[in-house]
Amino acid sequence: MKPAGLVAKLAHHFRVDRPRQFRLKNCDPDDTLDYGDEHKPQARELLRTAGAATLAEFQDKLYAQDRWSVLLIFQAMDAAGKDGTIKHVMSGVNPQGCEVHSFKAPSSEELDHDYLWRSLRVLPRRGNIGIFNRSYYEEVLVVRVHDGILKAQNLPPKLLTRRIWKERYEDINAFERYLARNGTVIRKFFLNVSKKEQKRRFMERLDQPEKNWKFAAADVREREYWDDYMGAYEDMIRATSTECAPWYVIPADNKWFTRVAVASVIIETLAGLGLHYPKVDDAKRAELKAARAQLMGGTRKRGV
Amino acid sequence: MKPAGLVAKLAHHFRVDRPRQFRLKNCDPDDTLDYGDEHKPQARELLRTAGAATLAEFQDKLYAQDRWSVLLIFQAMDAAGKDGTIKHVMSGVNPQGCEVHSFKAPSSEELDHDYLWRSLRVLPRRGNIGIFNRSYYEEVLVVRVHDGILKAQNLPPKLLTRRIWKERYEDINAFERYLARNGTVIRKFFLNVSKKEQKRRFMERLDQPEKNWKFAAADVREREYWDDYMGAYEDMIRATSTECAPWYVIPADNKWFTRVAVASVIIETLAGLGLHYPKVDDAKRAELKAARAQLMGGTRKRGV
Repeated sequence: MKPAGLVAKLAHHFRVDRPRQFRLKNCDPDDTLDYGDEHKPQARELLRTAGAATLAEFQDKLYAQDRWSVLLIFQAMDAAGKDGTIKHVMSGVNPQGCEVHSFKAPSSEELDHDYLWRSLRVLPRRGNIGIFNRSYYEEVLVVRVHDGILKAQNLPPKLLTRRIWKERYEDINAFERYLARNGTVIRKFFLNVSKKEQKRRFMERLDQPEKNWKFAAADVREREYWDDYMGAYEDMIRATSTECAPWYVIPADNKWFTRVAVASVIIETLAGLGLHYPKVDDAKRAELKAARAQLMGGTRKRGV
Repeated sequence: MKPAGLVAKLAHHFRVDRPRQFRLKNCDPDDTLDYGDEHKPQARELLRTAGAATLAEFQDKLYAQDRWSVLLIFQAMDAAGKDGTIKHVMSGVNPQGCEVHSFKAPSSEELDHDYLWRSLRVLPRRGNIGIFNRSYYEEVLVVRVHDGILKAQNLPPKLLTRRIWKERYEDINAFERYLARNGTVIRKFFLNVSKKEQKRRFMERLDQPEKNWKFAAADVREREYWDDYMGAYEDMIRATSTECAPWYVIPADNKWFTRVAVASVIIETLAGLGLHYPKVDDAKRAELKAARAQLMGGTRKRGV
């Protein structure tokens, strides 16, 4: 398990490059690319040292350069490991320059606006990394699976047509293209957990007192809609995998593997931006020299 | 000058329905559709009574129904009468339900985001009318006329290509289509003043002490770029006149006519939405009856 080679491999392997051919059933949630459990300690170590250091360095340059922004979107069924992945992959970076936003059920103020409104307000500014823990993609997931939610969105009835999901895919694609054209680099992750592994993790939340707080009865009820969700995810990934905002379908039955895979994608993405600290030109160099002289002069004159 | 006929005529006459054929030089800023100055008092009266009352009634229903929102965008050269038009046309409506936003030079926080960001935050909520006094269209107007502004937007240099204006038109069209699909009705006004009339109004601002505050030396300097601006306006109108978000090129050398024309477009737009107060269904009727009984009962028991 050599770091550089693994990162490059993982960064591309799970990207959806041919959306029309994409089928969720061809994606194994238990896939680890033949790395067995014996690689777990190595993977953890890799993430903790090489991965974290590389990410932190890239982010520092991203921030200093102040031109690009990065938007990372995480979508998944409950207990697929979104929170844990964000925590383990991103903990090394400077929080000044990285913001995580979780989107819950919309407020009445949010429902009074178009569905992108609440996300757009918190898009990452230049030089920053923004992480969406769930996102506007819920508008074609939970909203699609549960009829009633769309009705509660207060849209004029004549706009609620059969074309609505297709229109939403089209609008989201157009919006992401706009963001890309204006300097936001977008990467989207679907953490693909199996129904069986989800059950095991729910049981763990019930059995272990320190995990009880994570358990919500509603999550179990959503399991009844599993197939509907898988259909909605597949449609969404087929319709919104674009060159400027690709989806990555990351196997999520093995947490250690999920994390290494996600970290690899982020590292490769940042590496591709050609980031560097802003260059010091002659004017700036003269400014620095003058500042140095002033500081030194001050020292001599006032004896400080 | 019969109100209804005039409104219908004005509402359609200045809409750009064939953007590819559109040429600004074919639009006469002094056009009044053969209504002479003798119609001015009538026009004023129309606006003050019929116009204002109709608008106020529509807005009340728009607000009660809480499904559609309306976005009115005003663009023009300085002194074309944007502020006066907004003031005279919209003064009859309830301010709770109508918000005007003026966009000045962007702040550094705004420059750190994509160029639509600051506008999206203040889009009208359902049931409301939002007015943009200038708008994101400045991104293809002043930003196009003055090279330096684009450079100051901190975009990654590799994204600054020759295609940028075409891309911006495309992105704006896609975004307005998205808004329309989600219940926002968009109408865009270019108040078309002549260079000669602008000069006359600037002179007025210099000559009349109570108008001095409106004068800004920078406005006069912008006159030097008149032809560049006209080119940018023409390109913009040709590229972004769509069915869901049409441009209206309103003659602006005669204020009274500008105002009646703009009011007519807004009234026709609202009339087309089929607005009505929310219907009272059986459940609601029962609720009202119970409330009445409770109020009456309270009166008898407590003798209030």
